[in-house]
Amino acid sequence: MDRDVISRSFGSAIELDQADPLAGVRQAFDLPHRVVYLDGNSLGPLPKAVPKAMAQVIERQWGATLIKSWNDHDWITLPSRVGEKIARLIGAGPGQVICTDSVSVNLFKVLAAALRLSSSPGKILSEADNFPSDLYLVEGMNALLGEEAPAFEVVQTDALLDHLDASVSILLLTQVNFKTGALHDLAELTARAQAVGALVIWDLSHSTGVLELELDAANVDFAVGCGYKFLNGGPGAPGYVYVASRHQGSVTQPLSGWMGHAQPFAFSQDYVPAQGITRFLSGTPAILSMTALDAALTVFDGLALAQIRAKSEQLGAYLIHLTDAIDDELELISPSAPSQRGSQVSFRHPLAYPIVQALIEADVIGDFRAPDIVRLGFNPLFNSFSDIEQAARVLKTVLKTGGHLEPRLNARKLVT
Amino acid sequence: MDRDVISRSFGSAIELDQADPLAGVRQAFDLPHRVVYLDGNSLGPLPKAVPKAMAQVIERQWGATLIKSWNDHDWITLPSRVGEKIARLIGAGPGQVICTDSVSVNLFKVLAAALRLSSSPGKILSEADNFPSDLYLVEGMNALLGEEAPAFEVVQTDALLDHLDASVSILLLTQVNFKTGALHDLAELTARAQAVGALVIWDLSHSTGVLELELDAANVDFAVGCGYKFLNGGPGAPGYVYVASRHQGSVTQPLSGWMGHAQPFAFSQDYVPAQGITRFLSGTPAILSMTALDAALTVFDGLALAQIRAKSEQLGAYLIHLTDAIDDELELISPSAPSQRGSQVSFRHPLAYPIVQALIEADVIGDFRAPDIVRLGFNPLFNSFSDIEQAARVLKTVLKTGGHLEPRLNARKLVT
Repeated sequence: MDRDVISRSFGSAIELDQADPLAGVRQAFDLPHRVVYLDGNSLGPLPKAVPKAMAQVIERQWGATLIKSWNDHDWITLPSRVGEKIARLIGAGPGQVICTDSVSVNLFKVLAAALRLSSSPGKILSEADNFPSDLYLVEGMNALLGEEAPAFEVVQTDALLDHLDASVSILLLTQVNFKTGALHDLAELTARAQAVGALVIWDLSHSTGVLELELDAANVDFAVGCGYKFLNGGPGAPGYVYVASRHQGSVTQPLSGWMGHAQPFAFSQDYVPAQGITRFLSGTPAILSMTALDAALTVFDGLALAQIRAKSEQLGAYLIHLTDAIDDELELISPSAPSQRGSQVSFRHPLAYPIVQALIEADVIGDFRAPDIVRLGFNPLFNSFSDIEQAARVLKTVLKTGGHLEPRLNARKLVT
Repeated sequence: MDRDVISRSFGSAIELDQADPLAGVRQAFDLPHRVVYLDGNSLGPLPKAVPKAMAQVIERQWGATLIKSWNDHDWITLPSRVGEKIARLIGAGPGQVICTDSVSVNLFKVLAAALRLSSSPGKILSEADNFPSDLYLVEGMNALLGEEAPAFEVVQTDALLDHLDASVSILLLTQVNFKTGALHDLAELTARAQAVGALVIWDLSHSTGVLELELDAANVDFAVGCGYKFLNGGPGAPGYVYVASRHQGSVTQPLSGWMGHAQPFAFSQDYVPAQGITRFLSGTPAILSMTALDAALTVFDGLALAQIRAKSEQLGAYLIHLTDAIDDELELISPSAPSQRGSQVSFRHPLAYPIVQALIEADVIGDFRAPDIVRLGFNPLFNSFSDIEQAARVLKTVLKTGGHLEPRLNARKLVT
């Protein structure tokens, strides 16, 4: 297609921002002036609702009401209340999502749960390009299981379907590739896995809050996701676990701490799992961190994921359009089709690390991913088309002027 | 001993408070007026240092510096920095303690680590009166291990030594009994276990911050502990893991998330555990909750555990003295010897539940533990002898007037 046609089809950043129905949501965030923040997929920025909620939980609840807050301020149900807020964002009916622990810990729980639920002692299949921590957790579980460990097969992405046969009991995938942003077809792969008798576990850390997820409709078995990326819950915010209702009566998990007990305050000697998703709790929930996430989720009130996803696709397309052919060595590694891409655009460049440093020095905050990837993530809740235009302009200047060769010295000059 | 002699040996609460070298530490806490808080062993109260630290981490760090805070504000080392602060309180040299996750999750890590480290495939020994969650975690791990699970023997406390023989590979105990406050001799039991070739895991949740712990001197193998009881880190504060230096080169744990990797940002496909205690991290640390604990620990600056422990023993002895024989049905179930008791005094009474409700209504906050226990915990950092005197007086009034039979109606009248 002719470049000018594409350009005209987008219009100017200002025009795009004026036509953006989500433009006003940015006001819900406390973003530093002049910063173009394209790393919300690593750590979402501070929602304005958070400081007030934190002062409330710290001074009015913990400080003034002390231990009684577990009942009086309903801390005891916070994991399920936050879980239900997340459920709405991932297409999950009630009683299937709970907020707890880190993604890593939660993944261990669902891996072990799926392993015990699985009728066949088959293998666990994943892809080499999965988020490495997910692979580490399988290694960790298998080392514990020793000779009883299931086989663990890690294949290239394009070989996944070839290896998805009746020998597989668990398919473990992350929907959005953390490096390239390439998107798996969640419904399609879930159906394919279940057709060969496997259970599926989806890591939705880079999906939740920015993709139109329909976990119930796709008949997903298990999922985990992150609270501090597109949900903006703060550094190290707790993650969540999704377990389909149909499994909840029969599934157990090994981190069987007292908060997952049917009667935690009966202090009985034997573990009796709580009904439903609550059995995926372990120890005492991190009320302070979880309160920040709870407040952050109010940003989504009244917003439709379809709208958020549509803007995400446009932001990505606009960034790809503006950076097209600006440098011979800058290679787009994200899918160019919006429907095949999460909410990020990544490039490969031999000098990726100094390029990202130079961008950051010029207040365009993106991410470097080893060994040679420039990753620019965007969240439609706060990123504007002007952000994208500014990022593309600074990236172009960095590459043209060689600013990345001496980032500390030159970067401030690059803001044009 | 003659009652008057005991009474004279204590003096009045006011005299005891005047002579208390720790009396001023109470100013470091934001305690509600008129409340006698005897539940700091369940949830420590709010240290005044916390709100400011939280505003700082939320607004100045997360809000203003965003993702760069991992380096610029050293979030990445927060788990080890908080771990070292705790190390000082438990007699641990550097590099052996890390702050992370909940006690339950951490206990799973050290159980699995000890199991793999253990040379013999022997059994796990614990006591029926252990904190139930600790037993649940062994059950959870064993259910995952299936036929490979170690035997798990749970015996009465007075039978522990009889069962501690060469068939035991792991001894799992909580130092302070959560119901009675009875204290295990940590050094003695550690030595006895090691003499038969077993590894020891101590749960120090009710010990840390209030007992003189010397883990290195006692040659302890593994320990876990709680951040929200006597450390006052806030609801659901992260716990900690202690692993003796001598084990760190050979020990691994199954929740092998990326934060425990030798190079988390290399994103290599295979897990390579970090050097030392860092391999006991799993996912991204809960920076907000951990910052509250970090700030709370400043209360201990300049204080000696010996001094804290001495006052704890006195507070307990004073409470036992003041409540002696006030009611035929109120039975002291804590050891009367201070050296055999943690920082709590517990009573059994058939109407324990309404008694605790009546106490709370009268602003004496203690805890009920099923089925019939009144548990009064005290933290020498903020509890005064006047607190104890007030609690004993209200308890006496509740029992004499039958206020516990109609707590909602009568309790406010009971404050004398």
